[in-house]
Amino acid sequence: MRIALPLAALFLTAAFVAHAGDGRIDYDHQDQWQSAHDMAQSPIDIVTHDAVSARDDEPQALVFEHTHAPMEAVDNGHAVEVETHSTQATIRGRHFTLAQFHFHAASEHTLDGKHYPLEGHYVFKAQDGRLAVVGVMYEAGKPNAQAQAVLDNLAHAKHAPEEVDIDALLPANRGYYHYLGSLTTPPLTENVEWYVLPTPVAMSRRQIDAFLAHYRHNNRNVQPLNGRPLVHSEG
Amino acid sequence: MRIALPLAALFLTAAFVAHAGDGRIDYDHQDQWQSAHDMAQSPIDIVTHDAVSARDDEPQALVFEHTHAPMEAVDNGHAVEVETHSTQATIRGRHFTLAQFHFHAASEHTLDGKHYPLEGHYVFKAQDGRLAVVGVMYEAGKPNAQAQAVLDNLAHAKHAPEEVDIDALLPANRGYYHYLGSLTTPPLTENVEWYVLPTPVAMSRRQIDAFLAHYRHNNRNVQPLNGRPLVHSEG
Ligand SMILES: [Zn+2]
Ligand SMILES: [Zn+2]
Repeated sequence: MRIALPLAALFLTAAFVAHAGDGRIDYDHQDQWQSAHDMAQSPIDIVTHDAVSARDDEPQALVFEHTHAPMEAVDNGHAVEVETHSTQATIRGRHFTLAQFHFHAASEHTLDGKHYPLEGHYVFKAQDGRLAVVGVMYEAGKPNAQAQAVLDNLAHAKHAPEEVDIDALLPANRGYYHYLGSLTTPPLTENVEWYVLPTPVAMSRRQIDAFLAHYRHNNRNVQPLNGRPLVHSEG
Repeated sequence: MRIALPLAALFLTAAFVAHAGDGRIDYDHQDQWQSAHDMAQSPIDIVTHDAVSARDDEPQALVFEHTHAPMEAVDNGHAVEVETHSTQATIRGRHFTLAQFHFHAASEHTLDGKHYPLEGHYVFKAQDGRLAVVGVMYEAGKPNAQAQAVLDNLAHAKHAPEEVDIDALLPANRGYYHYLGSLTTPPLTENVEWYVLPTPVAMSRRQIDAFLAHYRHNNRNVQPLNGRPLVHSEG
């Protein structure tokens, strides 16, 4: 069978990739190397039963400092986002600075298949460019004064608060599920450390509805885990 | 101008991606989202002048334990590789286990444009799947007994050593250049932390030539940094 050249080239490339593990790596044609993509994406369904316990011989805690910080809440076109840069975090021993936080409805991560009405993403960055995102679930309950501060700032309400205490937007229990994933909006960049806190934080139904008035479907579908370890820490 | 459908679709996709930052993220057509790839690849040229000093308020050291370990040296088809799994490392506070180490000729990383004849990659893995690779430069000088142990084991020499002391294959000075990169062979997976040690380790010319007798061109070309931070630590 005669194959036109471009198709033959495709087959050869596929064969090359299939055999890369056998050592046939052609260093004289590196431009033809193929990379594996999109194998470590977020969000995921957190199957709590499948998580392994975090090692107890290395620092595992998430510690937040300077959580009372100036803020500017904006609608960035696909989420309600809060610009705030004072908060620092020590995440498993390493230093991070908060770049912003924003909200998805419904939650992007699911816990054993369950969505929450709202998920906050607290996006931290380290000196080497490493991103660590802390995911927080919100559910209907008693009003949350700091959620109201964000909503009032966003609405440019009269005498709206210009500061937020992030501590009150995080659960008191800092246990988490950790895995390596990606941004959940394009460009979907991998190399993101995820810390999803399973203990939900309460807001009033009215406050949740105020967030949903902006976006009620800005959650990416859950992605396959593809064998990535899921680690559980008591925090 | 009339455009046939597939081409029009391509243009629309490109426009969508270009505007993703403006918030036009279509959650009803997530299968059309495009991800950015291959922006954080390895190796790189380490421009030492551009490195920023590591923060002094978090652990930065590379600490190796159980470095005297059983080994099996093999030719994996594209590199001389040593299977050894006992060595542990604490890398910036986190626990890793050595999966294997292997050699590239010439060096893959360059230091201010300079190649070394040989670069060793010590591939460590953490509980969460995080890979950290410690890169070591080798240059011609006095013989290295542990390099000889690897070569003798590889050659199945009579009474060949079955153990290696990795400590003697690493420089005494544990200062490093750190950045976030990728594997340097297909599948070129990103999410790899690199620690390149600029202090070279000596082997005899004869020992280097023995490695080069297996592979003398198994080094990937240097890749663009694309704005990634390069961090220097005294170790
Ligand atoms: Zn998000
Ligand atoms: Zn390598």
